[in-house]
Amino acid sequence: ASHAVRSHLSNHTPPHQGSLPGSLLQIIHRTSSCPGATHSCIFNALHDASGACLLHPTHFMMLPKLMSRGPSWRQASRLLRSPRRPYSVRMPDEAYSYIKSVADLRAWQPGTDVPDVEVCGWVRSVRKSSGVRLIDITDGSSMRPVQAVVDKKLSTDMRPGAAVRLKGTWYNAKNGPNADSDVSNSQTTDEKALEGDSEPVSRVNGDRVGQASAQAEGDAGSAQTMHELQVSDVEILGSCDPQTYPIQNKYQTPESLRTISHLRSRTPLNSTLLRLRSDATALLTQFFFQEKFQQTHPPIITSSDCEGAGEAFAVKAGGPAEFFRDPKYLTVSTQLHLEALAQALGNVWTLSPTFRAEQSDTSRHLSEFYMLEAEMSFVRDMDQVMDLVQRMMRSLAQGLKLLNAANELEENRLDSRDPAERLAFADLVDRRELQRRWRGLLVPSRWPRITYTEAMEKLQPVTAKFEHKPVWGGGLQSEHEKYLAEEVGYDKANDAYVPVFITHYPREIKAFYMIRSAEPAAQGETVDCFDLLVPSLGELAGGSMREHRLSELEDNMRLHGLEVPKRRVAASNDMIWYLDLRRWGCPPHGGFGLGFDRLLSYLTGVPNIRDVVPFPRHYERCDC
Amino acid sequence: ASHAVRSHLSNHTPPHQGSLPGSLLQIIHRTSSCPGATHSCIFNALHDASGACLLHPTHFMMLPKLMSRGPSWRQASRLLRSPRRPYSVRMPDEAYSYIKSVADLRAWQPGTDVPDVEVCGWVRSVRKSSGVRLIDITDGSSMRPVQAVVDKKLSTDMRPGAAVRLKGTWYNAKNGPNADSDVSNSQTTDEKALEGDSEPVSRVNGDRVGQASAQAEGDAGSAQTMHELQVSDVEILGSCDPQTYPIQNKYQTPESLRTISHLRSRTPLNSTLLRLRSDATALLTQFFFQEKFQQTHPPIITSSDCEGAGEAFAVKAGGPAEFFRDPKYLTVSTQLHLEALAQALGNVWTLSPTFRAEQSDTSRHLSEFYMLEAEMSFVRDMDQVMDLVQRMMRSLAQGLKLLNAANELEENRLDSRDPAERLAFADLVDRRELQRRWRGLLVPSRWPRITYTEAMEKLQPVTAKFEHKPVWGGGLQSEHEKYLAEEVGYDKANDAYVPVFITHYPREIKAFYMIRSAEPAAQGETVDCFDLLVPSLGELAGGSMREHRLSELEDNMRLHGLEVPKRRVAASNDMIWYLDLRRWGCPPHGGFGLGFDRLLSYLTGVPNIRDVVPFPRHYERCDC
Repeated sequence: ASHAVRSHLSNHTPPHQGSLPGSLLQIIHRTSSCPGATHSCIFNALHDASGACLLHPTHFMMLPKLMSRGPSWRQASRLLRSPRRPYSVRMPDEAYSYIKSVADLRAWQPGTDVPDVEVCGWVRSVRKSSGVRLIDITDGSSMRPVQAVVDKKLSTDMRPGAAVRLKGTWYNAKNGPNADSDVSNSQTTDEKALEGDSEPVSRVNGDRVGQASAQAEGDAGSAQTMHELQVSDVEILGSCDPQTYPIQNKYQTPESLRTISHLRSRTPLNSTLLRLRSDATALLTQFFFQEKFQQTHPPIITSSDCEGAGEAFAVKAGGPAEFFRDPKYLTVSTQLHLEALAQALGNVWTLSPTFRAEQSDTSRHLSEFYMLEAEMSFVRDMDQVMDLVQRMMRSLAQGLKLLNAANELEENRLDSRDPAERLAFADLVDRRELQRRWRGLLVPSRWPRITYTEAMEKLQPVTAKFEHKPVWGGGLQSEHEKYLAEEVGYDKANDAYVPVFITHYPREIKAFYMIRSAEPAAQGETVDCFDLLVPSLGELAGGSMREHRLSELEDNMRLHGLEVPKRRVAASNDMIWYLDLRRWGCPPHGGFGLGFDRLLSYLTGVPNIRDVVPFPRHYERCDC
Repeated sequence: ASHAVRSHLSNHTPPHQGSLPGSLLQIIHRTSSCPGATHSCIFNALHDASGACLLHPTHFMMLPKLMSRGPSWRQASRLLRSPRRPYSVRMPDEAYSYIKSVADLRAWQPGTDVPDVEVCGWVRSVRKSSGVRLIDITDGSSMRPVQAVVDKKLSTDMRPGAAVRLKGTWYNAKNGPNADSDVSNSQTTDEKALEGDSEPVSRVNGDRVGQASAQAEGDAGSAQTMHELQVSDVEILGSCDPQTYPIQNKYQTPESLRTISHLRSRTPLNSTLLRLRSDATALLTQFFFQEKFQQTHPPIITSSDCEGAGEAFAVKAGGPAEFFRDPKYLTVSTQLHLEALAQALGNVWTLSPTFRAEQSDTSRHLSEFYMLEAEMSFVRDMDQVMDLVQRMMRSLAQGLKLLNAANELEENRLDSRDPAERLAFADLVDRRELQRRWRGLLVPSRWPRITYTEAMEKLQPVTAKFEHKPVWGGGLQSEHEKYLAEEVGYDKANDAYVPVFITHYPREIKAFYMIRSAEPAAQGETVDCFDLLVPSLGELAGGSMREHRLSELEDNMRLHGLEVPKRRVAASNDMIWYLDLRRWGCPPHGGFGLGFDRLLSYLTGVPNIRDVVPFPRHYERCDC
């Protein structure tokens, strides 16, 4: 059938030119109108011999645009066939060539044995069985390994940690549909019965490997899959002495793993966290592309020392003179520069490293962290900024639910029988608690938005709960934020933690660039700003409407004790450029910043954000 | 018809739940099987009332995965309808709600007048005509503006640079299909004929605006579109005094614009360059997602001072003590950390800021620049790394060709009649030269790969051309690189500049981590490495196979005069962690780094990379 679809397509386009018609819709329209089209033959039609997807990345991105262009979109593009390239898993038959990684292989349970499958990866563990070794192999693509069954003689140097290349047959170790109920019985096939038999059968050199394997699995409980790789060839790519290897196939505390940050991403949990980070980055990029926000690269080295608050790192080159003439600093937030770019491009965003030289030693702070910041021109209503935050986070959560890493964190926890894995999961936030977070992110209704003043009214009756008394005009302490997130944000009907926006803080405790609210609270003036609070972490994001009028901005600066720079005596490091943005054609605008690492910590239930970044930097700690 | 498609869809799914079935294919399959489906009704079916795309970002990304999962993918996901949000352009009728920006509006030439169109943007220029002002409006979404026709009385504060909100009718200023041949004749419709007439007609308060406008266009040649916005309401969002506004609607040199980096991205050319940068970032993210590379965030603050070469910026916090205990530096390359991550995740990539404290004042160097780096595990053959580089760059060029910014740079140059625009384009590389670059990136055949030794054999016969004599064992000078790029890379048949890989440089002049070639050249030992050369810029990317064997790596370090750290006396800043990667299970691996800003400079023909970054940082220069 897949051949029929391809011929069908090739009536319209010469496949030898390495191209297909330019529109996803067109391809799928044609494919699906082909008689006898099934999902797998459509899949094959959309992929070339090496399994590479024939749809160009831009086809999806371009869909609305191509459609609006009318007939011209038909000629718009040509597709590139990827040449075959080395994935960690290689299939002998091009029909299966979309299987490229251990994750793909694990998910693939064909009805018949498939010989000549090549798998590269690292040995996670080795278990003995009669005459064979049962070896867990991982390539970093999935939290759990595939199991390789290797003859004892071949397995000599296959020790935990080693990098290997294996070749063998992918087969069903449980041999048939009733294998679950009676494993040993179904393994009694003798060598003769194998010949010409298309049923999946497991053996290595005549041993009853499937049986051994199934029993070992029952003991160790390391794998759900019934499929294994029956290995015929072994190549050691990089050997490993498990005696000295700091990553052991047993539980290690997050604290001890942090002392070996160059190795810890090899553990099942840490590698999965990094894959989730990658998924999140791709999804956010796609989200903002579709929202027509321009992704920008605001500078890392900037002139602002954050008002001398001592939180900025200074940047120095060798030699006595200043490399940039004046002292320069690592950015603490890209917002001010984003505002300049929003006045050129409309709506902009960035995912940039930012830096704080705070000597705090908490689970929520890093000296180097990624901030997602966005800025929108022509917006007067702060609700629209909060709408964007919610839409973005909901879209991210929905997207992650479709990708592997987040699902592995969720599902592997349910059936975890490996003690090391169970203990690693036990370090995370309780599973039901984590599900409350995800349900809250996914609610279709608008997340609660209450003012700071309303928040104070909720806090003051329960003052006794707090170390710091909640007082109008003072900041919200971490304990206040957590209380609000858990009380206001708890959605009983759905047993969900819905993030909570706290808006309109007192003017004096918020940044000088925020716009003064049109209507002050009874207790005093406020600004149009918001913090987004979630349980455990507190503040996840913050945003505001920016003061877009020059004289009002200057007033704010004076109120906050900042010097208002004059054009005539402009110095390299002053804020004259930021005031300039208000001098010529500044529309109402607003935006937000979100701590990307905190968000990942919230989504994964990892209590300390040091464990969601590959190489954490904080006070007195910067390894590698 | 679009309604029919929607009902068709809603038989399968309750639209009031704000969701559609979880698969792109499923939706499109159903949609296209609906009788009477046309492209525009499919488009509408896939978009909600506000024009937001109903396809979730992950649907495209997930296609292969969902397909391979079998039936479960059907329930996999639910789609989010975006709430209506403020775009710079708002349409009165939901049928047109996919028009969200000036770029969309420009491309839209409906057969009838459309009233109540709202446009936010900045005034680029104001021209006088009888009783009206012809005002160019931009919102940063396209290089060229839309033209607004505003009654003189309404236009008082609409001065160049001002931010405005306009409301009016989108109409065809040339009134009919033959307007091009005889503009003035077709504009004689009187007021009576207008009523009940569905033909596009242009007028403001009875004036023959269309005519005036068409004539003005003929003079200034600023717009290809025949459509204009006939404005009835004006709101000034941010005023501007054009006398003091540093961005003038006339030509300004790149040098002068660099002195006002906070404002220069507002110019038509600079904003288009930043949009192209955004497009490139999204396309590369999508490319690597599909290639199953994990996007990572290696650290910015690192322990390596680049072997004390003085090229690294040091990072200091306030106070006498070292914040991180030992001196720390801004990363000069993420490669070493990427290698650690590749050993956990298989294939990884990053687009990260990197820093060099070089005091060079060239058009190709910045102190802060973005590097795209990738690292692949389980690769022994360097051709596969070069394949990846070519596939990535070709995919990028193909993608950009489908998006607006690159096309505007190409097409606007052809019909440019505005003197300021013509001069701005004249600063770029010659158009034919630029086309040679793009054709070269897009060739389907493998780019030339010659060894350093072969390159020397090509250079030595023409020694007289060079200031520096080409000698085996010495580095390739910039003049050598350019010669090779132009001679070896020139493809006569296609009149194209194909990028050239120079491979296997002498061991002594390349980095210590590169693997020694199995077969040395006659002149001496080489390493498995490559540089990618292009005309004008020279080196665009470089990569190598990494030495994955511990003792060979230590030999390399000694050869390069580096101290080989011992485990027993490990210090925080030494390279022991990098050696550790070879100690336990290190497979053959390789990767590359590409100067992202240089690539953009090459793609756009902007001669100086200071003009493709929003806020350039280089020796003695770091504004804002």
